[in-house]
Parts: sequence; C-alpha cells; structure tokens
Amino acid sequence: ARPRVGYFYTGQTPDTILSEEIAKLKIKNFHSSPVVITENASAYKAVCEMFVEDVGSLFVVNDDGLLAGVLSRKDLLRIAIGSQDMNQVPVSVIMSRMPNIAYCKHNDTVLDVALLLITKEIDAVPVVRQKEKGLEVIGRMTKTNITKAFVSLANRNNVRK
Amino acid sequence: ARPRVGYFYTGQTPDTILSEEIAKLKIKNFHSSPVVITENASAYKAVCEMFVEDVGSLFVVNDDGLLAGVLSRKDLLRIAIGSQDMNQVPVSVIMSRMPNIAYCKHNDTVLDVALLLITKEIDAVPVVRQKEKGLEVIGRMTKTNITKAFVSLANRNNVRK
Repeated sequence: ARPRVGYFYTGQTPDTILSEEIAKLKIKNFHSSPVVITENASAYKAVCEMFVEDVGSLFVVNDDGLLAGVLSRKDLLRIAIGSQDMNQVPVSVIMSRMPNIAYCKHNDTVLDVALLLITKEIDAVPVVRQKEKGLEVIGRMTKTNITKAFVSLANRNNVRK
Repeated sequence: ARPRVGYFYTGQTPDTILSEEIAKLKIKNFHSSPVVITENASAYKAVCEMFVEDVGSLFVVNDDGLLAGVLSRKDLLRIAIGSQDMNQVPVSVIMSRMPNIAYCKHNDTVLDVALLLITKEIDAVPVVRQKEKGLEVIGRMTKTNITKAFVSLANRNNVRK
C-alpha cells in the first residue's frame, strides 16, 4: 500500500527526524567572514580591531597568511586589566597558539562544531582549508552562527511557504 | 484506513515537525545560574568576578536585589583600554541600564530568546520574575545555552534509546 497524502513513511519518530535534519546542516552554509590580524600587531590594536569589526574573536596569521593563533575578548580583557602597556604587548604573546587551536572545515556539520564549542568552552573557531604549509583561514564559526542555525531550523516551514 | 506501523499521520512535513519540536523548548529547562553584582561595585571588581565565575555577562542589581543593569565583556573591555582607573569607576556608569535591557521569563521559548539575542546583538539575557517593585533575576540565558539546546535536539534520539 502506498502512503496516502497526509501520511508519509518514515520508520521514524519526530526525534529521528530532528537528528537527521540537524545532521544535514553544514558549516559552509552558516559561517561568517573571518577577521584576521598579524602576529606582531599589538594587543591594543587587536582590541580596536574587535570593536571596529564588532567581533568577539580574532584569528592571528603568520607571514605566510596561515593560521598561527586565536584571540578572544577574554584574552584581551585579562591583559587589559594587568599592568603591561597594551601597545607594547604583541598578540603573539597572549593568543592561543597552534597546535592548541580548535578549528573546523567547510564540510563539517554545524552539530560537530556546536559540540566542539561546548566541549572546549570557547565562543568561536576558525573555518580553515589545508594548504601545503599550514591552514588558511576562510571563515569564522561562532555561537552566534549556531544560534542562527537553530532559528533557521524552526523557521524553515514559514520561509518555504 | 488507519496508518500501519512505520507510517504515521502528521499532515506534516519534516519541516513542520522541526518547527513544532523547537517551539516546545522552554527557557526553564535550558538556562544557567545568574551571576550578579551590586551597582556600586567597581569595574575592576566586575572583571575579576567574570573571571572567577567564568561568565561573559554579569547582571547588576540594586539595593532591593532587583535588576538594574547588564554588563558584558565588551562593556568592560571598552573601559579597560581607556584612561580611567577601573577601581574608581562603578559598574552603574558603564552598564546597560533598565529599561533598555532585553530579558526573558521562565516560560518563554528558547526560540524567542534565540531571536532576541540575534536581533539585539547580545550574548546573554537575564531570566527574570516580576516582583512588586521590579524584576528579580533568577537565571541567565546565553548563546552557549542555545548551542546546548541545539545539540540536545540532535541527540534526543540517542539519549532515549
């Protein structure tokens, strides 16, 4: 018997539908543009860049333009309340550094990255592409992007109608 | 004809199931504990509190213990790179202030708050309860909590099996 209109075969519950639909969401459809800064830039410049670009994380690149580190608002706030002159401190001293950086790729799922952000207790990861000498930064995936993915799931129905 | 096992009547698509399941998620099942500070505390103390409690937002309460303001890492970073002595600046001067504060209640949906965080471009809102003289802070709802809600949706199936 073929399913009638209004019935559909799933072999599934709403819960398995949720899992499957969520597992289809890929980073490439949800990430933002990265904001990068060079290793020798000062902590002060990094804070200014964060305000100008209105982001909570900066990615630090080396002379080859490849990923060298990540800077969060928390990293900068810690330095800002210290006694050092922020104009004299290069970001390379305070950033989280490769290889201790969580990152993701274009084809990873939003769910993988959501788990990564929760597990590592961080707000953002760079989206990278493997190059011969290291990782090129091509995007930024944050808890804001996850929040937008969550909203998009709920609104699909309205959007398509 | 009654649906057979493996078929179920929904009148719906996977998209409407997503919308309905997401609309069921309530703040009361996902929020975190609030971290509060008093209005006359210094900006320096607020930064320390943020690090000790490992949160990105503090809620400022008045003498009656009711919501008076919200402080973000961004608010504190802005002050920290300025020329003022952070020990001399009370949080009441730099916080976002009632009535210009977004908040939510226990029975609001996670989706409502996700939309609020995106629209207002903020990371967290207090969960409040109405009292005679104002709003009592009973929780904290952040993009981290939304990210956890997103993961929980995907994992329900595994959790229940």
